Amino acid sequence: MKQLRIDGDRLWASLMELARIGATPKGGVKRLALTDLDRQGRDLVVGWGRNAGLAITIDQIGNIFMRREGSNPALAPIVTGSHIDTQPTGGKFDGNYGVLAGLEVVRTLNELNISTEAPIEVAVWTNEEGSRFVPVMMGSGVFCGAFSLETAYAAQDLDGKTVQDELACIGYLGAQVPGQHPMGAYFETHIEQGPVLEDAGKVIGVVPAVMGLAWYDCVVTGMEAHAGPTPMGLRRDALQVSTRIMQEVVAIANRYPPYGRGTVGMVQLFPNSRNVIPGEVKFSIDLRNVNDALLDTMHREMLAFVDRTRVASGLAIGIERVSYYPPCPFDPECVAAVRDATDKLGYSTMDVVSGAGHDAIYAARVAPAGMIFVPCKDGISHNEIEDAKPEHLEAGCNVLLHAMLARAKVASN
Amino acid sequence: MKQLRIDGDRLWASLMELARIGATPKGGVKRLALTDLDRQGRDLVVGWGRNAGLAITIDQIGNIFMRREGSNPALAPIVTGSHIDTQPTGGKFDGNYGVLAGLEVVRTLNELNISTEAPIEVAVWTNEEGSRFVPVMMGSGVFCGAFSLETAYAAQDLDGKTVQDELACIGYLGAQVPGQHPMGAYFETHIEQGPVLEDAGKVIGVVPAVMGLAWYDCVVTGMEAHAGPTPMGLRRDALQVSTRIMQEVVAIANRYPPYGRGTVGMVQLFPNSRNVIPGEVKFSIDLRNVNDALLDTMHREMLAFVDRTRVASGLAIGIERVSYYPPCPFDPECVAAVRDATDKLGYSTMDVVSGAGHDAIYAARVAPAGMIFVPCKDGISHNEIEDAKPEHLEAGCNVLLHAMLARAKVASN
Repeated sequence: MKQLRIDGDRLWASLMELARIGATPKGGVKRLALTDLDRQGRDLVVGWGRNAGLAITIDQIGNIFMRREGSNPALAPIVTGSHIDTQPTGGKFDGNYGVLAGLEVVRTLNELNISTEAPIEVAVWTNEEGSRFVPVMMGSGVFCGAFSLETAYAAQDLDGKTVQDELACIGYLGAQVPGQHPMGAYFETHIEQGPVLEDAGKVIGVVPAVMGLAWYDCVVTGMEAHAGPTPMGLRRDALQVSTRIMQEVVAIANRYPPYGRGTVGMVQLFPNSRNVIPGEVKFSIDLRNVNDALLDTMHREMLAFVDRTRVASGLAIGIERVSYYPPCPFDPECVAAVRDATDKLGYSTMDVVSGAGHDAIYAARVAPAGMIFVPCKDGISHNEIEDAKPEHLEAGCNVLLHAMLARAKVASN
Repeated sequence: MKQLRIDGDRLWASLMELARIGATPKGGVKRLALTDLDRQGRDLVVGWGRNAGLAITIDQIGNIFMRREGSNPALAPIVTGSHIDTQPTGGKFDGNYGVLAGLEVVRTLNELNISTEAPIEVAVWTNEEGSRFVPVMMGSGVFCGAFSLETAYAAQDLDGKTVQDELACIGYLGAQVPGQHPMGAYFETHIEQGPVLEDAGKVIGVVPAVMGLAWYDCVVTGMEAHAGPTPMGLRRDALQVSTRIMQEVVAIANRYPPYGRGTVGMVQLFPNSRNVIPGEVKFSIDLRNVNDALLDTMHREMLAFVDRTRVASGLAIGIERVSYYPPCPFDPECVAAVRDATDKLGYSTMDVVSGAGHDAIYAARVAPAGMIFVPCKDGISHNEIEDAKPEHLEAGCNVLLHAMLARAKVASN
């Protein structure tokens, strides 16, 4: 089977054609979930699927499954996919690549007249980005039971429009009960959305796991006062105390390499005036690591540092964990299938733990799952300048083809 | 003369009456410069002046001078005053106290039938706060030639209304050329707007000088990236680098006590999103000290630290000084007059260098000047909960009376 290859040019052409729907002047894509542009994108992809002979199923949260029948239809399908909704200033590849790589696998199998024992399916998950409706990863989340269909339906955008109404409006409110769709295994190809592969000069990232994350809101309360008349010794400067905590966030992450992450991304001062000592500072903390034990250690060290800082400064400091996603190790056999395919094809490779959320995380709750990363330029994603090289996208798709075939098994004619 | 005292109850009653114009539900005052409420306040004060026999002069920037003639009208008047415009969430005492303490001095002299050799005047300066129109300290600034009448006239509020039009509208566009008003000496009483007197348990602050200040805008430019996929070692985190500079601002101030001040009051992150490493951080720096040499040393240390941080971090860091007010030492004889009056009256006292701007700074450019501080509750000002004790306000006004008399000289009958 070593000689089997997908058609990189055809994959690239499909990516570019889909990217025209919602194309932005800066070369990106704005195709928010459940908008008319999303409908146009879905219609295009579903049309391609029909042309490739795939059977289409839509479930009640709008997830699309496009099926290429296997020689043994009783087997659970080997599924691949991702999403085609984008960030408001999104790129051409995030999500779209995973869906169209799946389609390219199907087209290749059709062209070479290869049948598989297990069916092959391409999934398009609804509203992965969460830009218009929260929660994020909505379609796969409902599918795996992370939250209910009712919760998802009730979600509203800024104009008060609901997911349920908008699904109906674009014609993708399907009949199948989410989750009542068998899945023998799930693979997802994706641009890395980080700089690791590019920095190391590798083509394929084998993804053993997705990091867990803990999000916190921290509020430091001092006393606002005039910057001139208030001597240094009489100040209760909420920002100065906050900077110590902000630095510790990074220090904690550095103590737990290589997958420790610590970020303060959002800061708000009150009153935020040039000549007033800040009376209150609110900021976010984002801690991540690859396993529960390490993330828990980071969590405890963070709280302990805040306690010490509270005592040392005499200021009130509140910290609350507002979100928690546990680390998600992928199925060892799926990871091995990706690794074996990469080795067989001779691509340079390394393990890359995913730091971002993906539909594969939820899929992994209901089926063995694995992911394949390819480099993206400068590690930039969620940005109109997001870019990836055709040869890398082609390589990732070849790995997907071979990993899926290993799992679905080529049928003897 | 030791037995001379102003009437503290009358002073308090006038403060409370003026505070009704623009009173806010929280107990503060909102009486922005050149609004109809400012007109009502000015009319009330000018009416009180007329009732006290004072002659009123308005200059072209709306400064009001209320004159009690001296036995030698050829002598330049001994002037006291402040402002009656307030911050949007201002208090009852900031500015208003300085004007009404002057009026109380006049009322006391009238009541006791004391004439002075030099005339006594009460000044009401236009738009000290700068909340509606910049520059701040507008009336006294034009008066001393810090900027031109044309500059002040052209200043617009958020609705595009100009100072010139609004002055005419409220009936306070006078004829006298600003600055062509002789001033033999200038005294100003003011609440401290800081915590020093209260902290030390003193009643009268003798003000030898006003701090100079330097304002900077600092911009740190890194690279925005996803908080998850980007390893710590590949980050260019603009906030983390900024926190080092923010801490150094305070460290520099602490190296030059007791009057060194260092404040970061305003911070803005881009994109300011929870799971994105900040790509750019803008923040303000406010450095103050009491003499030019110290402030210049702080300035040079700040720039040197930024240079070192730029090299150490590899990030682009821009810093620009956007404002500079030199330190303003007050006239030694005026300061001595305040100190002598305080000692004579037996009030507890200490020197307090002013950290805030006052009309007295500009007045000091054209006449010998001095200031008298009294405590304010918790050092809080520019706030609706600004508060001061009647006995402290009375004490400050007694000091003003005696300092002015020392300068204007009691006429022999």
